[in-house]
Amino acid sequence: MKTIYKQNLIAAVLVCALAIATTIARAADSLPSWNDGAAKKSVVEFVAKVTKEGGPDFVPPAQRIAVFDNDGTLWAEQPMYFQFAFALDRVKALAPQHPEWKDKEPFASLLKGDVKGALAGGERSILEIVMATHTGMTTAEFEKVVKDWISATKHPKTGRLYTEMIYQPMVELCAYLRANGFKTFIVSGGGIEFMRSWTEKVYGIPPEQVVGSTGKLKLELRDGRPVLMKLPEINFIDDNVGKPVGIQMHIGRRPTLAFGNSDGDLQMLQWTAAGSGPRFMGLVHHTDAEREWAYDRTSSIGKLDKAWDEAQTKGWTVVDMKKDWKRIFPYEQ
Amino acid sequence: MKTIYKQNLIAAVLVCALAIATTIARAADSLPSWNDGAAKKSVVEFVAKVTKEGGPDFVPPAQRIAVFDNDGTLWAEQPMYFQFAFALDRVKALAPQHPEWKDKEPFASLLKGDVKGALAGGERSILEIVMATHTGMTTAEFEKVVKDWISATKHPKTGRLYTEMIYQPMVELCAYLRANGFKTFIVSGGGIEFMRSWTEKVYGIPPEQVVGSTGKLKLELRDGRPVLMKLPEINFIDDNVGKPVGIQMHIGRRPTLAFGNSDGDLQMLQWTAAGSGPRFMGLVHHTDAEREWAYDRTSSIGKLDKAWDEAQTKGWTVVDMKKDWKRIFPYEQ
Repeated sequence: MKTIYKQNLIAAVLVCALAIATTIARAADSLPSWNDGAAKKSVVEFVAKVTKEGGPDFVPPAQRIAVFDNDGTLWAEQPMYFQFAFALDRVKALAPQHPEWKDKEPFASLLKGDVKGALAGGERSILEIVMATHTGMTTAEFEKVVKDWISATKHPKTGRLYTEMIYQPMVELCAYLRANGFKTFIVSGGGIEFMRSWTEKVYGIPPEQVVGSTGKLKLELRDGRPVLMKLPEINFIDDNVGKPVGIQMHIGRRPTLAFGNSDGDLQMLQWTAAGSGPRFMGLVHHTDAEREWAYDRTSSIGKLDKAWDEAQTKGWTVVDMKKDWKRIFPYEQ
Repeated sequence: MKTIYKQNLIAAVLVCALAIATTIARAADSLPSWNDGAAKKSVVEFVAKVTKEGGPDFVPPAQRIAVFDNDGTLWAEQPMYFQFAFALDRVKALAPQHPEWKDKEPFASLLKGDVKGALAGGERSILEIVMATHTGMTTAEFEKVVKDWISATKHPKTGRLYTEMIYQPMVELCAYLRANGFKTFIVSGGGIEFMRSWTEKVYGIPPEQVVGSTGKLKLELRDGRPVLMKLPEINFIDDNVGKPVGIQMHIGRRPTLAFGNSDGDLQMLQWTAAGSGPRFMGLVHHTDAEREWAYDRTSSIGKLDKAWDEAQTKGWTVVDMKKDWKRIFPYEQ
């Protein structure tokens, strides 16, 4: 009897080992742009355990909520947030209709090509630029403006469309999570309407799964037809302490997995980590000055300082772009 | 050749007729609580045409967004909104912690059982009751309070749990739409956190697909752990002109199908109707005083006046509960 028991045990272990190996092998196919290493391993092992029916860490599909920051996590954010590049282009395009901008900051500096000068006014200047370029039109009109811009405008350094500057490994990760029953959401400080125009096509994330910063909207009638006007008033800032609020308002459950890249994502990661049961917290660390950009603790864009420290203390996964990613952008060979 | 052409045509017509008959027969199985009539026919024909690949009215699955009002559309709303019954019960439960309520309206009247007197102050009184019972705690604490209440409290007239007083035909309709590739959302004036505690279990609609009125939330640390506090401040009212705004903020696309029951749903229906391509607009008309309640133009709850007129003018579907529904509540034989 003892021998039979032993044999059964060995057989069981072999079956389990095979199952795990198969899962990892299958995952490997789904994540071809990831190098084998600790980061990839942590993701694959997490997905394997939360999807293992009957296992101690099983998470029912309905609760498999994965949230991703956008700027610096799903696509690049240098030398300036892409949405800000959009806003600057819009200031130029709209200038003929605003002769007063010639003598009015921050527009006057912008129109002379002096971005630094324009931003001397700090947050107030940024807000004025955003309001002038993102409001005073209907949601449908804004969507068209964004679609036209994003389908034609090239990044100053790479000469590529902005939507080509997405991180291939993260696109694969989103698809891999969805294939494992996760629902993928964007939770970004960026404007919700700006992102929704292209996230479905580019990431496979539909508009209803995009959470972002919002302005106030107002229902109006235009020639007897209802339209939604974008008012020059901020409704919600989905950054820092706002991210858990945005998640609760929009999704209504705590994520099982969260990925960010900067201190603006810290509260989202902490909120995710504070849930019971298995949780995955990940950070993208920009370490590749050659293929992308290298920045962290002292960067004015995408500063990664406190969140990095907490990742070390808490054992969160930190993705080293240079080491962990075989390919960064989809257009690389 | 002419004869062959004719034969082919006849064959094609027969195949089409069979396909349509099959679709309708299959749908009939999915909607057993609906009587055969114009309302059921309009829904089934709409779903058949928007799901017919290659047809002129085909709607891709990603765009098949269906929105439903909740109170009076998915569950009953008499003799008072169920969430208001919850609030009144909470006033009683919390009274020992608030000795000052004995002399303070609207609480004083409420605690004496005088609801009418309590509501003499109009909207201001309602707001005070909602704030006192829905805020000042974390989202997790509130969820528990709602779950405890809704799993135990009986409706004063039927003696049934509130979650048993859902409309069986509408539950079938939601499931039927999902089986045909629709994503079903609630878009209600009710509180988002109140509904999310039970909508998934009862309607199969997950928290992230519930849009409702919201209060402000604030991230705080409690014993070093992040919590979301419900602040006594209104964030958004998802009713009337608010519904298209809520839809845009939360879903980000125009619905293909919308169902309501009162004037509070008119703008949502108009917003849906204003889209290009096929759209379905439906109203539930409360006509059955015996099995449910009968009310419309002059009711203080669920007033159906302007929306009814517009439904007649525009040819929207009006469901006559008495005639169109074989069964109203799931517990009926």
